[in-house]
Amino acid sequence: MAVQTIATTSAPGTTGAPETDRDTAFGPAVALSCRECGERFPLGPVFACQECFGPLEVAYEFPSGDPEALRAAIEAGPDNIWRYAPLLPVPADVASRPNMNPGFTKLVRADNLARELGVTGGLHVKDDSGNPTHSFKDRVVAIAVEAARAFGFTTLSCSSTGNLAGAVGAAAARAGFRSCVFIPHDLEAGKVVMAAVYGGDLVGIEGNYDDVNRFCSELIGDPLGEGWGFVNVNLRPYYGEGSKTLAYEICEQLGWRLPDNIVVPIASGSQLTKIDKGLQELIRLGLVEEKPYRIFGAQAAGCSPVSTAFKNGHDVVRPVKPDTIAKSLAIGNPADGPYVLDIARRTGGAVEDVTDEEVVDAIKLLARTEGIFAETAGGVTVGVLRKLIESGQLDPAAETVVLNTGDGLKTLDAVAPTTGPSAVIRPDLDSLRDADFFRKHTTDDRNSREAGLA
Amino acid sequence: MAVQTIATTSAPGTTGAPETDRDTAFGPAVALSCRECGERFPLGPVFACQECFGPLEVAYEFPSGDPEALRAAIEAGPDNIWRYAPLLPVPADVASRPNMNPGFTKLVRADNLARELGVTGGLHVKDDSGNPTHSFKDRVVAIAVEAARAFGFTTLSCSSTGNLAGAVGAAAARAGFRSCVFIPHDLEAGKVVMAAVYGGDLVGIEGNYDDVNRFCSELIGDPLGEGWGFVNVNLRPYYGEGSKTLAYEICEQLGWRLPDNIVVPIASGSQLTKIDKGLQELIRLGLVEEKPYRIFGAQAAGCSPVSTAFKNGHDVVRPVKPDTIAKSLAIGNPADGPYVLDIARRTGGAVEDVTDEEVVDAIKLLARTEGIFAETAGGVTVGVLRKLIESGQLDPAAETVVLNTGDGLKTLDAVAPTTGPSAVIRPDLDSLRDADFFRKHTTDDRNSREAGLA
Repeated sequence: MAVQTIATTSAPGTTGAPETDRDTAFGPAVALSCRECGERFPLGPVFACQECFGPLEVAYEFPSGDPEALRAAIEAGPDNIWRYAPLLPVPADVASRPNMNPGFTKLVRADNLARELGVTGGLHVKDDSGNPTHSFKDRVVAIAVEAARAFGFTTLSCSSTGNLAGAVGAAAARAGFRSCVFIPHDLEAGKVVMAAVYGGDLVGIEGNYDDVNRFCSELIGDPLGEGWGFVNVNLRPYYGEGSKTLAYEICEQLGWRLPDNIVVPIASGSQLTKIDKGLQELIRLGLVEEKPYRIFGAQAAGCSPVSTAFKNGHDVVRPVKPDTIAKSLAIGNPADGPYVLDIARRTGGAVEDVTDEEVVDAIKLLARTEGIFAETAGGVTVGVLRKLIESGQLDPAAETVVLNTGDGLKTLDAVAPTTGPSAVIRPDLDSLRDADFFRKHTTDDRNSREAGLA
Repeated sequence: MAVQTIATTSAPGTTGAPETDRDTAFGPAVALSCRECGERFPLGPVFACQECFGPLEVAYEFPSGDPEALRAAIEAGPDNIWRYAPLLPVPADVASRPNMNPGFTKLVRADNLARELGVTGGLHVKDDSGNPTHSFKDRVVAIAVEAARAFGFTTLSCSSTGNLAGAVGAAAARAGFRSCVFIPHDLEAGKVVMAAVYGGDLVGIEGNYDDVNRFCSELIGDPLGEGWGFVNVNLRPYYGEGSKTLAYEICEQLGWRLPDNIVVPIASGSQLTKIDKGLQELIRLGLVEEKPYRIFGAQAAGCSPVSTAFKNGHDVVRPVKPDTIAKSLAIGNPADGPYVLDIARRTGGAVEDVTDEEVVDAIKLLARTEGIFAETAGGVTVGVLRKLIESGQLDPAAETVVLNTGDGLKTLDAVAPTTGPSAVIRPDLDSLRDADFFRKHTTDDRNSREAGLA
């Protein structure tokens, strides 16, 4: 491993890293480009434009070719995100490297939920709880790991309140990186265990999530952070590309078709923008037929700066102080908020928010209709879907995909106060017969039999 | 739905259920046959032989045909257990029915773990935490759901201490069954939430797991249980077949080859016997080339009746009172214990057990080497694998598959006492620099750089 050197006069948003063979390490990616001013930079561990401080994203030169052949190559690929390696900033041999290999999670046909919500055009849940550490974060981390390898980083790091810590810890363990993850010191015990079990270093910071982020920014610019790849900071342009695979998978799993509507949760807003980017790429490459689609953003009412801006017709997003049970979405100052507004407006979508009570109701609704136990972020998207239908903002006769990006096992506290046994009884049949819930069922059954006979 | 009638003089181990069109409902399955005396019975909700009280299992008539064509048909099937529908007691159109569609979980090439354990012949983890409710129970419940449909049951039930309750609750919700699951009343709060969130009835029984089981057996024989399919009692022969899919997937994912060794956890022992059944079927159908394989059983020392019998050369298994953190394996009187002994001896395998401390160590070992966070049952199999190698019972030069059948998120308590942050620091770089763990790394890095230069 080459020894990394830090430039003493680093430009804003850059960190030094050793040069490696970048001709092949990033596949079809050719540059980083500024989302604001369009300025281009070489592929590197850089996350902000040196001209205008705008966010950088990966730019590609995709080979022109027969879409049929590309579709066939993808379908013959592995059952994970690497089937889309030709569309990602990763080397062609990525599938043979040690990585968590996330993705190709189930697109669940949700007929029961559709009936409850009155959706007649077809409803699907893209269920990312099936990823290795049970959240969509495995997708973004998987790409960041390959970038870290290319840049010669030896330690993987991030700031996190839960899902990302686990994803980084697991991926680093398997890929042979050291990891050091920073979390607020007062995180719930369960989340600490999940983040620490992979054997990397987990550091509690005395402060809140904003303090953790500030600390990480400071560390990146310091020699102490030499050789460290922060997946969501100096590797962020690569990391973000992982979310494109959600768009690819949804369309492939629909039979290489665009859905009419997609409902996406908003934390930083990055995921929503990358899903749009992915859909546009599929159209441009001829992998799906072009047609209108609408992208809807979902927030919790207790952290709804983008929803508020959308409803008020604003172009800028005013930061808020989060107060919601949907902690994985609780980013009060979402970096990609303005781009989310653009996309929602351009595609004819919307941004909506739901209360914590509606989040809990939606988690339970999804569980009892489809057997999917979502984390709070999934309660936000399903709750927002219901609200969008009820308010006439989303056409129930159109085909809709709603995202569940995490696992209910990680946010048990959200439903625990209102979820428990129907009864506690002695181990005999009389006790069962006398239990209220059982008597009610028996009466219901008799009523429906009598109704059937009438 | 036909109204079910209960025979007033039911034979042992039988329950009445309405006749349905069974010609197609069970695919290639043709009968139930007694594992002890070989007597055959029609396919029905029956679990014990009316002649000798032995356990019944599903008997098939597989079509003879070209193995190449069958392999191709399987490979063209869905990415779940229904790709093996031609080998399971399910209808041909099973993939179009509402079901959780578990299976085709990752077979993870575990090179890091292999290095730690000294395995040179190739090591793979079959990671069933990727199933919809994150345990292998989704496989067995998926088959039981289809049998319940065929028999006209309206309620799905089971006794459970955790994983099975969640799997039944989720599957019933999606498939449109009522569910009523029985658990010991003092189960941990988290497990109660997981089992109850799917909206079915969850009933706490004042007593231990044995009391719950006795209660369920009583309920099956009573009119109160009319229309109820207990997945692990009166649907047990079908349920058990779900475990065969682990064998099918392992061999297909290896490129239609048998591994040399498989390490399987033992609770009732059913899973191990069905994996052997599945391997035998693959050989018989010509889907894999016949060669010797060894099956190893893994128990926790605190519930090791089969391991004890194996080591003592006994044919019978003496029941024990379980006392182990591996609660999903804590069956003191394993019904299939004698068959497990037969299979381990016939194939040249073994049965071994590890202490709770070794279980915890093995969970952490798997997490830090492969990024897989296993439940305690996975700690048992990995711990036993290590012990088998160290004691010379398993050849490290042979190709080995070790099963992880559940998810660490469900047994956080096992690792929580010994898993935590490396440090808690103030949000400044000096605090990081001074933290013990960080100083140690810096020293290690300097030493390895100096060693590299020397």
